[in-house]
Formats: sequence, structure tokens, C-alpha cells
Amino acid sequence: MSLPVEFERIARYFKPLAGVGSLALTDDAAVLLPPPGRELVLTVDAMVAGVHFLADDPPDLVARKLLRTNLSDLAAMGATPLGYLLTVSVPRDTPEAWFAAFAAGLAADQAEFAVTLLGGDSTSTPGPVSLSLTILGTVAPGTALRRSGARAGDGVWVSGTIGDGALGLLAARGEIPDPDGSLADRYRLPRPRLALGMALRGIASAAMDVSDGLVQDLGHICRESGVAADIEAALVPLSPAARAANRRELCLTGGDDYELLLAVPPAHEAALHEAARAACIPVTRIGTFRAGSPHVTVRTETGEVLPLARGGWSHFA
Amino acid sequence: MSLPVEFERIARYFKPLAGVGSLALTDDAAVLLPPPGRELVLTVDAMVAGVHFLADDPPDLVARKLLRTNLSDLAAMGATPLGYLLTVSVPRDTPEAWFAAFAAGLAADQAEFAVTLLGGDSTSTPGPVSLSLTILGTVAPGTALRRSGARAGDGVWVSGTIGDGALGLLAARGEIPDPDGSLADRYRLPRPRLALGMALRGIASAAMDVSDGLVQDLGHICRESGVAADIEAALVPLSPAARAANRRELCLTGGDDYELLLAVPPAHEAALHEAARAACIPVTRIGTFRAGSPHVTVRTETGEVLPLARGGWSHFA
Repeated sequence: MSLPVEFERIARYFKPLAGVGSLALTDDAAVLLPPPGRELVLTVDAMVAGVHFLADDPPDLVARKLLRTNLSDLAAMGATPLGYLLTVSVPRDTPEAWFAAFAAGLAADQAEFAVTLLGGDSTSTPGPVSLSLTILGTVAPGTALRRSGARAGDGVWVSGTIGDGALGLLAARGEIPDPDGSLADRYRLPRPRLALGMALRGIASAAMDVSDGLVQDLGHICRESGVAADIEAALVPLSPAARAANRRELCLTGGDDYELLLAVPPAHEAALHEAARAACIPVTRIGTFRAGSPHVTVRTETGEVLPLARGGWSHFA
Repeated sequence: MSLPVEFERIARYFKPLAGVGSLALTDDAAVLLPPPGRELVLTVDAMVAGVHFLADDPPDLVARKLLRTNLSDLAAMGATPLGYLLTVSVPRDTPEAWFAAFAAGLAADQAEFAVTLLGGDSTSTPGPVSLSLTILGTVAPGTALRRSGARAGDGVWVSGTIGDGALGLLAARGEIPDPDGSLADRYRLPRPRLALGMALRGIASAAMDVSDGLVQDLGHICRESGVAADIEAALVPLSPAARAANRRELCLTGGDDYELLLAVPPAHEAALHEAARAACIPVTRIGTFRAGSPHVTVRTETGEVLPLARGGWSHFA
């Protein structure tokens, strides 16, 4: 009696990705001795074709985006990646080449970020491709970066540039020009800021990654920290392609940036710059946290409050 | 600026489920100090409406089945549950009542199995409801039950009764009678054999849970252990409802049983019976592992080999 095709696929495409603790994907679960004296950091993301990626996006890039959005969550906590579990639900007529490309994308990023596959589940679906990825990382006890630590007087900082992800979605759909392809590339392949995140323990007073839009995500830090935030639109760092696109509000509220959003006390600014230089990742101060009910105010160059139709991405708005 | 509806839902329905390490679902990830001196056991399952459950199944039962299938994997490893992460992808018009019922189902099983929510992700989908659940458990180092330990001469044992899950799917669809509803109940609400699994460390030489069909799953133990298995169809324990249904082949090859399938050396049989009595779960010997290339043979009462069209469930056959 031959095995169903999903077992052959697991052996062919996923077993080569399996690392320490995975038991070579042969058992009901992975078994892993956690690094002694470390806290575990755990997060999960789901991605659905037509919602989080385009149905015709290359499968290797879909896989890498799935892994990288989770790595970005670890970066936001200052954690070191350890391994991941994966679910893949695909239509029954999905070609072998899809699995080969999907696994190749994971293999590329496993090599880049030093993580391995611990386990997973593969099923059919009558709907669009639906994926989930759970990632494990570790931190020294008590050192995880949190959203709740921002204090009045801390600066609001971001890594890299903001808005390329949301513009990249428009570019990938052919709705705005993208001469060098850099916008679509940012949408399809986030850069998790792991090295910076790990270096920020003891420097940043709060952190998260920008995934649903800068203003909305900054609102989360305000809410959890019990402070307000004022930012200046003109200070928000834009890439050359984003400046050319001239879509300021979208940059402030679009999702998919996967940059770090930080609260940093003035006394730690020198250490922040040193950490950023060591990680080769630019950081920019865009505003200030202040006492006040949790709220984000965005001001223009002339000091006027910029009205925003919405703060960020919602799945159900 | 108000928060998108998904954040209100998380606060209303999922925050009450969140336990130690979840950071009350406020951050990018959970942070958890693992129990010292224990190995972690990790597994994930995906479930899709129309594939793993019926689209009109009550959401509380769907949630409980999702959690219980994962608990069953921990049971098969002999692990103690610790906590879980969840992804929920639902159509945009999903009513509030769906979330309320789904969360109520999780709350009921959290109370029954002493696990709590660590984190999750909630997204929209243009397709059917798609769920995933990653569960963490722990074992003393080196004691996890594996599929690879079966030896020639070990008995083939199962817990509970076999076939009710597959028959229950037919019953839930109204395709076979189910006067007392017990078959559909078994399909919708698996009983993870956690207490038995934990008690089998040092007694069973191999274990897994029966999720894809008895014969196919026994084939996995044979393959990983490098042995053959002979079982007798007449010895496979059936519930009264399954006996009445008179669908022997479906019972042997259908999925969704979530019973434990074990290899137990003859010298450990007394200890097995004691463990089963302590867990209040019946166990039945259905055959023997023997030397030979990995293969499962099913014999009838008269000693003839029972030909089977397939060994179990495939998503892609």
C-alpha cells in the first residue's frame, strides 16, 4: 500500500529543512531541549492568498515573506530566533513545482537567518492558499522588548524607511510606477531587523514592528504605555521611490513595513546610534512621547495637525 | 481614531483565554520561562472548513476539535500540555456570535485540559474558515514516546474504540443512522488520551495517535521502527454504534479516531493494564509486530488477508 502524496511531499521538500528537535518530521511532534536560562519568545502569523500576498506571487517569495514577518516579530521583542512550525493548506491541484519553489524560499531564508523547521502540517483546502507559521526565539530573562515601556520624553524612532510596503502592494498590482522594482520588492520581501532588535535590549524603552501602519502601530505603544505621541510627517524617513510616489498618507498608515518602531529615552540616544551603526540599519527620530491620554498626533511642516482617514490596516473595516 | 474591529474582538473574546506568558496578548510575541529541566514538545495542526469540519458545525465544537487534535498529538508523545497559539482566518462577514461561540469552546476545553492561550493572529479570508493551532507541551528529557521504538514481538495495542470518527462524519452528514448521536459526537469532539499517554512513558516502546486511519498510521510506526505488523480485524475494538453500522473497512482505514496506537513489549503488559485502569481508558491488543519489511497485514477471523483499497486518509488522493 503506497503512502498518500502528502507524505512524499513532506519527505522531498520539507524534511531537508528540518533541524534539531524536528525528529526529521517523523513523529506527532517535535522534541526540543530549550536553551537553559533563557525565556522563550513565541509568535504566530497567518497569511492568506489574496489578502497578505497576491495569488500569483512567486511561491518562494511567499514562503520567505511568511518566515520574515514572524522573524520581524522576534526582532521587535529583541529575541534570537530558534526554529519554526508551519502549516500549508493548498488546493488539491497545486502543482509539485509550487511546493518545490515554496521550500526553496524557506531554504534560502533558513540559511540567511539561522533558523530551521521544527514541524508542520499540510492539508488541502477548497479555498485560497492559507499558511501559518509559528516561530520560537529566546531572550535572557526579563530583557524582552515590550510595547508598554514608553515614557513621556522618550523619542519616537523608526528603523529604515516607512511606506515602501504599502506602496509596493500598489506597484505589484501595476497601479503605480516602480521603475527599479524596489517598492514591489519591499512588499514581497520584508527585512526583519533582527540584529538591531537584539542590540536594543536595555536601550529602547518600548518596541514593536510596523506591520499594520505606522500611526496605528504607534497607537498600540501609546495605549500599552499610557502616553501620547506627537510625530512630524516631514521627519518620517522615506525611500527615494516612496518620495517619488508622493503618497504621504499611505506611507503613514499603510502596512507591511516591518521596520522597528521604538521609544528611546534621550539618555540612550548615543547607544541607539551605536547599535544602529553596528547593525548597519539607519534609525530616525520622528517625534516624541508625552504625557496624555493614549493618542497619536501627526503634524505637518507648518505645525498643523494632519487629519487621517484611518490609522492603519484592518481586516474587517 | 478608533481601533479596527479585530482588536476589539481580541480584547473581548481572546484576552480572557490568555494565560501566563501571553503578556495579555498586547505584544508582538509571548514570553515564557520554560519549566527547567524539561524538554519542549511542539506540534501544529491546520483545519479548514469543508475539509476537517463541516461549514455549519457549531463554532464551539470546531474550536474544541482544533485544540483536542493537538492535545492528542501531545498525548501520543507522552507530553504534559503547557499552552497554545492560534490563527483564525474567517470571511469578513463572520458574525460576532461566531467568535463568541468559538471562544466559549476554547474556554471550556482550557478548563478541562489545563492549557491557556499564549498568542495568535486573526485575519480575513475570501475563502472558507481556516484555522491553525500550535501547542506546546513538556516531557522529562529523553522520555518522549516515539514512532520508531516498536520491536518484533511487541503487541499492537489501541486505546478506546476505532472507527467512530470516520463513521461520525457520515452520521453528521446524515448518510448513516446515528440514533443516540454518539458517532457524530466522536467526529466533532475527540477525546485526547493525555492521562494515558503520560502514564505510558517507559511502558510503550512506540506510540502515535490514530488520526488518518488505523492501517495507514500503523504503517508509519512500522516504517519508522523497521518492522512489520499483523493485526486481526476481529480484535479491533468497535463501539456498539460502530458494530451496528457494519462498515469494517471504513473503521480500519477512516480517520479522526484520536485514539492511541501503541507498541508494547509482552513484559510490559501488566504495567499497561495498570496505566489504562488508572486513566480509566480501555486498551485492546489487536495484533503483533514482527520482523519483516515495513508492512501492515490485516487478517479476518478465518486467517485470510483482508484486501484494503487504501490504508487511510489522503488530502490529495
